[in-house]
Amino acid sequence: MLYDRLEARFRQIGLLKSGTEILDNDQSIFMPEGSAGVRGEIMGAFKVTTAGLYASKHLPGMIRRARCDGRLTPLQRRNLALMGQELVFNACLPPKLVDDIAQATAAATSMWPAAMDAHDWQAFLPHMERMVALQKEKGARLGKALGVSPYEALMMERQPGVSRAMVDGLFAQLRDVLPGMIREAVSRRKTRFPFAERPADAMQLDAQRQLARLVMTKMGFDFTRGRADESVHPFCGEAIGDTRLTTVYNPDDMYNGLMGIVHETGHGLYQQNLPMDMPWQPISNHAGMAVHESQSLLREMQVGRSEAFCRLVVRLAGGVQCHLIIDRLLASAQWVEPSYIRTKADEMTYPLHVIMRYEIETALFDGSLAVEDIPARWDELSRQYLGLAVGEWHGRGCLQDIHWAAGLFGYFPTYTLGAVLAAQLMAKARQDLPSLDQDIARGDLGRLFNWQKEKVWGMGQQLPFAELVVHATGRPLSADAFLAHLERRYLA
Amino acid sequence: MLYDRLEARFRQIGLLKSGTEILDNDQSIFMPEGSAGVRGEIMGAFKVTTAGLYASKHLPGMIRRARCDGRLTPLQRRNLALMGQELVFNACLPPKLVDDIAQATAAATSMWPAAMDAHDWQAFLPHMERMVALQKEKGARLGKALGVSPYEALMMERQPGVSRAMVDGLFAQLRDVLPGMIREAVSRRKTRFPFAERPADAMQLDAQRQLARLVMTKMGFDFTRGRADESVHPFCGEAIGDTRLTTVYNPDDMYNGLMGIVHETGHGLYQQNLPMDMPWQPISNHAGMAVHESQSLLREMQVGRSEAFCRLVVRLAGGVQCHLIIDRLLASAQWVEPSYIRTKADEMTYPLHVIMRYEIETALFDGSLAVEDIPARWDELSRQYLGLAVGEWHGRGCLQDIHWAAGLFGYFPTYTLGAVLAAQLMAKARQDLPSLDQDIARGDLGRLFNWQKEKVWGMGQQLPFAELVVHATGRPLSADAFLAHLERRYLA
Repeated sequence: MLYDRLEARFRQIGLLKSGTEILDNDQSIFMPEGSAGVRGEIMGAFKVTTAGLYASKHLPGMIRRARCDGRLTPLQRRNLALMGQELVFNACLPPKLVDDIAQATAAATSMWPAAMDAHDWQAFLPHMERMVALQKEKGARLGKALGVSPYEALMMERQPGVSRAMVDGLFAQLRDVLPGMIREAVSRRKTRFPFAERPADAMQLDAQRQLARLVMTKMGFDFTRGRADESVHPFCGEAIGDTRLTTVYNPDDMYNGLMGIVHETGHGLYQQNLPMDMPWQPISNHAGMAVHESQSLLREMQVGRSEAFCRLVVRLAGGVQCHLIIDRLLASAQWVEPSYIRTKADEMTYPLHVIMRYEIETALFDGSLAVEDIPARWDELSRQYLGLAVGEWHGRGCLQDIHWAAGLFGYFPTYTLGAVLAAQLMAKARQDLPSLDQDIARGDLGRLFNWQKEKVWGMGQQLPFAELVVHATGRPLSADAFLAHLERRYLA
Repeated sequence: MLYDRLEARFRQIGLLKSGTEILDNDQSIFMPEGSAGVRGEIMGAFKVTTAGLYASKHLPGMIRRARCDGRLTPLQRRNLALMGQELVFNACLPPKLVDDIAQATAAATSMWPAAMDAHDWQAFLPHMERMVALQKEKGARLGKALGVSPYEALMMERQPGVSRAMVDGLFAQLRDVLPGMIREAVSRRKTRFPFAERPADAMQLDAQRQLARLVMTKMGFDFTRGRADESVHPFCGEAIGDTRLTTVYNPDDMYNGLMGIVHETGHGLYQQNLPMDMPWQPISNHAGMAVHESQSLLREMQVGRSEAFCRLVVRLAGGVQCHLIIDRLLASAQWVEPSYIRTKADEMTYPLHVIMRYEIETALFDGSLAVEDIPARWDELSRQYLGLAVGEWHGRGCLQDIHWAAGLFGYFPTYTLGAVLAAQLMAKARQDLPSLDQDIARGDLGRLFNWQKEKVWGMGQQLPFAELVVHATGRPLSADAFLAHLERRYLA
């Protein structure tokens, strides 16, 4: 059967990708530094080999013909559609363009750290111009194949099923109300907490590691099919059946490391509980980066920064002979303060960082903004949304993220789509599981685990994004639950 | 140029193999146990993908036509010959046979540990019969392609360039003199050392790890392009430019762990110092498993068990706050005693373990021994060579090694070829470097490092086995230096 041959091909691709993913994790965690050069060559060979499997001339015709097979089950039919989608992203770009992007990315990401440190926009400008031109061409070609606009095509590469209309609507609502809510939350913070700045609690590294393991176990992470290590940047790998995540511990400040591990464990739970009845097939993959982020943020922002969870952490810390104080922990968890750096932003200001970048990216793609004018627009948006002037300090302005150097356009929206979806999922979970907050404080996260598994993890890519949201929450994605959550946590 | 296209293809193969090798190491060191199933599938996909690259219909014709290109340098010509050799081992067997062997191996290796524990030859017998039949067919096909006998073909898969005549000659000489020498050495041991059995020195695990790192650094291991970890079985990976080796530490007995690390570091130095001017090409690979073993045994047996090295270890142990006693260490290093288990044998009795297996394997291939008669023959050879009757305790007899279950026929000889070559290399190194023993005791191994790099490591596969031996030692391989070494160390 034609379909079975397609499954076999995508199985091989899926297996190679999982192996490449483990090598990628190894590179960040275990690889000796002097092996970076040969590792780059090895990773290149793996990508070329996988690309070769996608590029087979027969695949598009096989997929087309298999569609006419009346014996296919609905899941097989959906898998077939996803195969076609994967082909668009992996085989419809001309090799010259793929190569140009790879080279531009290598050049830009290698010079970017120094440019950021020196706040040197002029040095980065030619790289950014080249990258925008290449990404516009990529978007145009993908968009043509998918029947969407170039920028939407780039967004869909990260989160299938999103549209400009959906994102514009959500972001307009958030942009309108968040700046006022933030001012209010900051003034209330001063009455809620007696601290001049976010309190930092020292904890020995070994105790932090033990605490992290206790927390991960409570969250349901399966250590027989996964590991937790340490690396320069926290991440969670996407190898199937072998989930490796990392965090960074700071002996003088235990909180960020803890929330890092809670966040990555949110990703890890999703990876560990993807459906395994059609293994290595596109339908068994996660449903996109926004959905993935919703799972990490549900665990970090919705659960992890709740008072109930802070109480659980204080209790677990006792088990590793550490004394944490609930008020200090809660102040760390629920600190709101506009700041320059996106990755350090709290959950209330974070969406504004994303919206700024989204507005700049879409303006670049619409042609209404020239690359050279990015810093001026950045400064203007930062004053307007966050009340912070950037001036010439581009390292904490438009040079702060690696995304543009890495060619990741259309990626930023997934962070806020994830936060919004996390809130909507948590609101529904609270309805379905009335004792949820007491469960969390008691450290009994089993019911939430099962709920997420049923609603999201175990669905893989069976449903398109919009339908998955309705399946899991009973209604389409909107900012309402997210805003209600912020209202309740910071303004009540 | 046709040759360049061949280099590109073998470069891709070499890169995929290195990546697979790192995944293989990860599996033994870092992989969570529950991920073994999916990892098996991933490794299978990598092997299928690499096999697909070898199996291209065009390759044999391309190699044939490239041979006629008058512009090739001698090294390119040698590389081309090695490509042809790799094709024989990787693409001339029918897929059905490859698959049958894979399945028989999986079945035999999974039941082997229990059969060994229960000394149950009857349970293993059908697996062994199937495996011998399959290996005979494999040997016949490879032998036809290479113009050698079936058993020689299997030996050549592990060590290109060996012949039955060469091995028969060496082994006959060793078999004749070793049993007598061993009896003599055991009786002298009793006067040299005051111990009833090999002394065991306790050392805390962390101190053992630190000592191992000091020893490895002295030996010249480059930690910027390699790692040392721990795993159930010690090994050294063969990834290019990223050398990962392991050992097993026992807190009650530091010596075996130390010698394990010295042995694997010997392999690791070879891997780290392979030539990099034609990277990822067959000519840059190591020269075969016997040569590889000669490098580990040169470091373990020749250097590591010398009095000079024991003195160095005592000194280095002082640096990690441990007090070792030279006489106890030397007794461990130079203990001779016939025993049942090959992997625990000393350097004097080890060749007899290998020769027994070689005689059984060649008799199986000649048809002069039936599989069912292996235990009786084993018992007979063990009495004759080692003075040890096995009887029905097959777990310490013919069931003790995983090799036959794993389909590794023709592999055992490489251990003793390696030991013999190590002695011949060391004799030449002593001639070329007159202060070698004082250098070792002082911990100055730089000259030996450079000597091995020039003579062996940096040669890759530029020379066939026999020529490499002459290049490095000035004469053909013989047992003379090995026997002289044993004479000097144990009988002088």
